[in-house]
Amino acid sequence: MHTIRVDTPSAKYDVITGSGLLGTLAPRIVRVAGKLPRRVFVLTSPEIWALWGDVFLKSFSDPPITLFLAPGEKHKTMQSVEKLLRQMITAGGDRGSLLIAFGGGIVGDVGGFLAAIFMRGIRYVQVPTTFLAQVDSSVGGKTGVNLPEGKNLVGSFHHPVAVLADIDVLGTLPDRELRAGLMESIKAGIIRDRSLVRFMEENSDEVLDRDSRALEKVIAASIRMKAGVVNRDERENGLRMILNLGHTVGHAIEQATRYKVLLHGEAVGWGMIASLYVAHRRKSITGAQAARLENLIHLYGPLPTLKLRAPKLIAATGGDKKNVDGVRRFVLPVGIGDAGVIEDLTSAELHAAVSYMLSQAKEPRA
Amino acid sequence: MHTIRVDTPSAKYDVITGSGLLGTLAPRIVRVAGKLPRRVFVLTSPEIWALWGDVFLKSFSDPPITLFLAPGEKHKTMQSVEKLLRQMITAGGDRGSLLIAFGGGIVGDVGGFLAAIFMRGIRYVQVPTTFLAQVDSSVGGKTGVNLPEGKNLVGSFHHPVAVLADIDVLGTLPDRELRAGLMESIKAGIIRDRSLVRFMEENSDEVLDRDSRALEKVIAASIRMKAGVVNRDERENGLRMILNLGHTVGHAIEQATRYKVLLHGEAVGWGMIASLYVAHRRKSITGAQAARLENLIHLYGPLPTLKLRAPKLIAATGGDKKNVDGVRRFVLPVGIGDAGVIEDLTSAELHAAVSYMLSQAKEPRA
Repeated sequence: MHTIRVDTPSAKYDVITGSGLLGTLAPRIVRVAGKLPRRVFVLTSPEIWALWGDVFLKSFSDPPITLFLAPGEKHKTMQSVEKLLRQMITAGGDRGSLLIAFGGGIVGDVGGFLAAIFMRGIRYVQVPTTFLAQVDSSVGGKTGVNLPEGKNLVGSFHHPVAVLADIDVLGTLPDRELRAGLMESIKAGIIRDRSLVRFMEENSDEVLDRDSRALEKVIAASIRMKAGVVNRDERENGLRMILNLGHTVGHAIEQATRYKVLLHGEAVGWGMIASLYVAHRRKSITGAQAARLENLIHLYGPLPTLKLRAPKLIAATGGDKKNVDGVRRFVLPVGIGDAGVIEDLTSAELHAAVSYMLSQAKEPRA
Repeated sequence: MHTIRVDTPSAKYDVITGSGLLGTLAPRIVRVAGKLPRRVFVLTSPEIWALWGDVFLKSFSDPPITLFLAPGEKHKTMQSVEKLLRQMITAGGDRGSLLIAFGGGIVGDVGGFLAAIFMRGIRYVQVPTTFLAQVDSSVGGKTGVNLPEGKNLVGSFHHPVAVLADIDVLGTLPDRELRAGLMESIKAGIIRDRSLVRFMEENSDEVLDRDSRALEKVIAASIRMKAGVVNRDERENGLRMILNLGHTVGHAIEQATRYKVLLHGEAVGWGMIASLYVAHRRKSITGAQAARLENLIHLYGPLPTLKLRAPKLIAATGGDKKNVDGVRRFVLPVGIGDAGVIEDLTSAELHAAVSYMLSQAKEPRA
């Protein structure tokens, strides 16, 4: 069991990861939030609820009111939010109510956003069930939904009162989702934790076999990195931007494929390969480091092939919300274990990086 | 010109009220927000824009991008919010953009909510154009929209970077709206400022004739009261609840009449009369004080007649979001110039107060 503290100007709470958390949720929530209110909601997906609903309910004397979000980005919408808010009102929710977001990243983002805007804000707990949600999206208070124009364009910063990441739940996670989630751990290592990079290089079999010791170590290190960055820059005004390594191109890939072909982590994997290319060209990493990190990414692959053309992908990077006032910001690794943000990425660099990445992505890796 | 400071844990900004503000907006905004960003949006209503758009634009070298919200509570919805968010994206809005909410309370609430959730929050300025919005809704950071189930059930606390309340704009405000807005000033006097009560008693002709000296004095005193309460209790955990004097019954009246018959201030006027009744019965004000305050409310009337039955109205009070965990909270004046929150209002008291109020509201006052 690892406990990692998030401590920002607007919120302080623990992220706990380990085994056996799900069956003991209620007392854990009471410990941080006090006596459970009259209405406790759980937002979840039908799949997760079918697999883990019984374990979830074990520690509650009064079962929470269940709200369902159908799976997939296409349900991460304002319409879903409105429907769920109305269900919460109808079920008697009030300003004292508490919400538990029990699912993957989409459930976490939508659940957090519901909690942020229901009656101008209620408390919530994140109980992430995917690797990606455990190491990344559940920590940091970012919540929101998509618009037809792009991903995560609407939302709030609203921190949970606790994050409880039970690694046992990963037992039912499809292999592809695990591998995709591990891309964010690779990112964590690249930008802040070279010992995590080495651990992931040396223990890829154990991690991919879901050895619980290895998995817990990677998850805790990833969360520690994320929490450390969030603690120093809650609102993404500076340092927090380094968390977007691989995300400018990654989001563009997701957008150009209409969120239908790749998992988020997979898109970030390809996006990191584009970033490594720029970093090497700018000499912020050596050729050997670039090759080593590229190998690590493929070690946790395979990343799906892409049938995209560079101009389309480059156009899609323009709508990324990390661009403040049109400046072309881009995150680059600095050696292994550090990263920085450049604001002067040229079209030529972006074009070269995207072309390099697409040439790798054209066919399955031997 | 009066400048009142809002100073809460999450935001510090000035509320400025006086003449001639609208024609000098741009430099005033630059003073608090720095150089104007690439995209400045103004959310307004077609009516206000037709009357005051030219004056608004006078001080901008690049005209802001205009977004329109059709008038009326029925457009204060999640669907409107989504439509406007999409327009902002399409027009190139980004995280550095700034929004100006230029209109009455609905424009302010929706504009503030757009700013709260567009790309997880951008800066905004309130330029309220109704009396009610100037003295009440523009100050305090409450933003949001309605659900079919009730009013203001969705929203955020998101403070503007400035509130600029130009009293000249009130020149085109319909008389009924002015009178309705003044109910919130009466409330301000009752709960915190007995000198405002006296001023409004002694200067009702000047105020209703829109004498600018009298109007500015009432507005500044009302804002000062509101800001003082918000400064001590930003999130409505305690003191801020006294701002809801008259609002429990007021909201119920609005809900029972489907927001179609009364202006908000008018409903609050009737709600305050119900509160005065309970306060007198509980001896937190004397009979003479109750009569004096009731007269003051009617002095700024007439309040519209109500054809409602008590049981329906009482049922409607149950859905009020100020009820935390089912406790029946109710605000009562304590003498003139103070107020408190009781948590043990009985059904009998509520019934008696509502019946008393409805008996007055049945026919026009002689």
